[in-house]
Amino acid sequence: MSSTAATDLIFGLTRIVGLPALTDRAGAPLSAADIAQIVEEADRFCREVLQPNAQAADRQGAVYANGTVTTPYRDAYAKWMEGGWQSLSAPVEHGGQGLPASLWTAMTELGMAADTSFMLGPLLTAGAIDCLVHHATPDQAARWLPPMVSGEWTGAMCLTEPNAGSDLGVLRARAEPLGEGKYALHGQKIYITWGEHDCTGNILYLVLARLPDAPPGSKGISLFATTKVKADGTRNALRCGGIERKMGIHASPTCVMLFEGAEAELVGEPHRGLPAMFAMMNNARLGVGTQGVAHGAAALRLAEAYAAMRVQGGRPIADHPDVARMLMEMRSVTLAARLLALETAACVDRHALLGDAAAQNRLALLTPILKAWGTDRGVETASTGIQVHGGMGFVEDAGAAQVLRDARIAPIYEGTNGIQAIDLLVRKLAKDGGAEMRALLDEVKRVPDARLRAAAAALEAATGTVLAAQGRDADAGQSVAVAYLDAAGWVLGGWMLARAAAEDPSAYGPAADFYLRRLLPRATGRFAEIEGALAA
Amino acid sequence: MSSTAATDLIFGLTRIVGLPALTDRAGAPLSAADIAQIVEEADRFCREVLQPNAQAADRQGAVYANGTVTTPYRDAYAKWMEGGWQSLSAPVEHGGQGLPASLWTAMTELGMAADTSFMLGPLLTAGAIDCLVHHATPDQAARWLPPMVSGEWTGAMCLTEPNAGSDLGVLRARAEPLGEGKYALHGQKIYITWGEHDCTGNILYLVLARLPDAPPGSKGISLFATTKVKADGTRNALRCGGIERKMGIHASPTCVMLFEGAEAELVGEPHRGLPAMFAMMNNARLGVGTQGVAHGAAALRLAEAYAAMRVQGGRPIADHPDVARMLMEMRSVTLAARLLALETAACVDRHALLGDAAAQNRLALLTPILKAWGTDRGVETASTGIQVHGGMGFVEDAGAAQVLRDARIAPIYEGTNGIQAIDLLVRKLAKDGGAEMRALLDEVKRVPDARLRAAAAALEAATGTVLAAQGRDADAGQSVAVAYLDAAGWVLGGWMLARAAAEDPSAYGPAADFYLRRLLPRATGRFAEIEGALAA
Repeated sequence: MSSTAATDLIFGLTRIVGLPALTDRAGAPLSAADIAQIVEEADRFCREVLQPNAQAADRQGAVYANGTVTTPYRDAYAKWMEGGWQSLSAPVEHGGQGLPASLWTAMTELGMAADTSFMLGPLLTAGAIDCLVHHATPDQAARWLPPMVSGEWTGAMCLTEPNAGSDLGVLRARAEPLGEGKYALHGQKIYITWGEHDCTGNILYLVLARLPDAPPGSKGISLFATTKVKADGTRNALRCGGIERKMGIHASPTCVMLFEGAEAELVGEPHRGLPAMFAMMNNARLGVGTQGVAHGAAALRLAEAYAAMRVQGGRPIADHPDVARMLMEMRSVTLAARLLALETAACVDRHALLGDAAAQNRLALLTPILKAWGTDRGVETASTGIQVHGGMGFVEDAGAAQVLRDARIAPIYEGTNGIQAIDLLVRKLAKDGGAEMRALLDEVKRVPDARLRAAAAALEAATGTVLAAQGRDADAGQSVAVAYLDAAGWVLGGWMLARAAAEDPSAYGPAADFYLRRLLPRATGRFAEIEGALAA
Repeated sequence: MSSTAATDLIFGLTRIVGLPALTDRAGAPLSAADIAQIVEEADRFCREVLQPNAQAADRQGAVYANGTVTTPYRDAYAKWMEGGWQSLSAPVEHGGQGLPASLWTAMTELGMAADTSFMLGPLLTAGAIDCLVHHATPDQAARWLPPMVSGEWTGAMCLTEPNAGSDLGVLRARAEPLGEGKYALHGQKIYITWGEHDCTGNILYLVLARLPDAPPGSKGISLFATTKVKADGTRNALRCGGIERKMGIHASPTCVMLFEGAEAELVGEPHRGLPAMFAMMNNARLGVGTQGVAHGAAALRLAEAYAAMRVQGGRPIADHPDVARMLMEMRSVTLAARLLALETAACVDRHALLGDAAAQNRLALLTPILKAWGTDRGVETASTGIQVHGGMGFVEDAGAAQVLRDARIAPIYEGTNGIQAIDLLVRKLAKDGGAEMRALLDEVKRVPDARLRAAAAALEAATGTVLAAQGRDADAGQSVAVAYLDAAGWVLGGWMLARAAAEDPSAYGPAADFYLRRLLPRATGRFAEIEGALAA
């Protein structure tokens, strides 16, 4: 029997984003049955291999000693590799299965819900693979991609430095040319997820650094690749200097990485490192938005089980009206976010498989909304999950607290949610004067629900309002960017649920009805906030 | 120099709730200077003794071994006792200073913000003192109160059992009469805050249990008092069976307490234990609502310091528009909650010091709103504080994560926030048909701000709506109770800030303006939700 999440993912992939038709048009048809089989297998792997280990992994945590990191994942990772899961959506020419990005999104949700700390390793590897597919030379790709696609190596992204977080322009890591296309990397990187671990024999690092002749600022940053173990089998001059003690994702090592003359190669053009990383960012942010869905799903699974079993006042608390309200809120918002993640991932597929250029604009618009709204909902739903448990929710044994502790990083990494809101306003809406948003809202308005249409019209008006504010005074515009993004998320979540209800009223009608009655009004509150903030 | 919180508390006590005039009328005048001196001393104690130890205390945690619990608080507690802080608002006839409850509320906020785990001990002791003052015989009071008021003993409340949480009617602990007014207590209690520790030589437990002839359900519960060490100096038959591993408040031992024939005395009338505990509940819930304020204040202190120091893009992040928005949100909502806590505490004082019966009704109405809205805001503000820190917020060293971990219990204990909302609807509003709420809203409408008046009118309309729904269908009413309470919190928070701004426009005008523009609209969203939920 598959989980509710898997059932919903299969429904979303086949009947909402239309993956069978999309892959058919691309000449590599996946039937509804194929999709169901893959998602169900992924679900089984996550429930049987990852989930049973997640709580013990949190307690044990990643352990640092003398440059090495011990994780609780050697067995689970070996099974991940054996199952070939890393290769799911990697290109066939590099040893991958070439399946759609939206299927990888489903796998990401299931894996993150089962054990976030574990799944971060494969997610970062997938990001590094994606980057190399686009920017490595054929020779580099031939050396690096096969072991990464098989899972024999993991990948790590090394961007942040102590003084360079959201502002990468000031980073200081440097690369000295050694001749013959080799460079020596020097510098310190922080917050490196799975930067060191004991699950594979080698790790490939993508590192942003400056060449000696680099102009200052963000235009002088290049991208390099270096490996823990060199091609000749010797250790490279890089090491882990320590790991962070964090609120959550305890078993995912968050490393300080020290590059002490590590032999590296340039990836892509000199000084073009930031654009190369930014090109990958939509996919990475889609992955983090999907984590928000996963945390909602994990919280819901625990809360539903507890509320069905815990009796107070002579009936299971699931039947108490306010607990029923909380569960319904968790269910409907998680489903809305799940479908929005698939809608966003399908844009990747429409672009990659069909060459649909319009899908790129849609992806660019949806990505910051999914990342920020999805992860804010993940945190909120995780917190509601604790509340359903009462006192037991605060006790670590129940698992609900771990979901919140693990979820709380998602609104921060891969660009804080504040950065997402500014990206939406400044780089997406302002770029085309809101045209792509209006086109999207025209689609939303085609759904025959008066509440949703009114909300879409209000979002269209708010789009004009925030763009005008941004034009007059950039700071004023940015100060309402989070409120605007949040409103957009609530409206688009309602759109996804209304479509699901239209497609299968008996299965999805109740969640859609609850959402449109009770959660869509949160957009109303945000519109009033934007008005109030910008009033003279 | 005192903290911002202390400055605001002094302002609130003297100029908003008018404690000098109130105490003058009561014949025990406290001048503005007296109030400032007490709050500043409390602030100094918290900043110098509690706060520097809080992070280390979290890491060390309370440690259980063979029935004993070791805390990191032996030194801090000794200083708490030396300072006589426990006696602040205890009655003079039992060795206390007899100061107003609103001053104890100020102390609670400062202590909870400095170290929640520590301050829980004194808070529970204060609750036990309050209970004994009202229900103990003169003989019992003479034996028990002096060592509790001095801090020589702590107090613990033993209500919850594994199957009896929100529903205390099903609890099973029992008391066997031993003759001569003594009883033997048998049973297991869970979630006992500071149930065992190494800070004092004795602990007094208030325990709910059944007498042999007790009727079933909540009408058969009596209240007993028992002590760890008996009057003859020997150990009583009770012990700590273990402590919980929790998400936060790691250094506050949350104990399983085993009563194995412990010698006890009845407190109050047989079978009247629940009413005796419920009478204490307003004060206990006021204390927990104040914790919400404290967590907001602690988060704000850390976030402001970090945002002033952390430079990105050539300026401190405090100057980035969205970070400035987050800080302003944290500041204004915390100030609103702080003043609402003082307004609520002042009702206790008006009743106790002036015999003002109307203040009891106001207290009954405000208490669930403060408890639930205040603690929800504490969690939200703590989470925003993490967000201000970016990646560093998720790293435990920064302290921001601990604030959220510690804050997350407050919406749960002392009656979950869902229970508060039902209490507000069923026991407060329905009891008088909303009359007290209308009287309060008439006061709110006297503030000359169009936005606040409109919000008050909308809350009045919503009061009628939810009462009507509740009358038709109790489940429907209860399913919107949380939304209603939340809306009431936002409106009353705006009321407090508008009064503060009227009193001192230069100091409090900016926070009030921000709140009325940007946060009061959250009530609008909640009104729309209530409408949507109850629509046919």
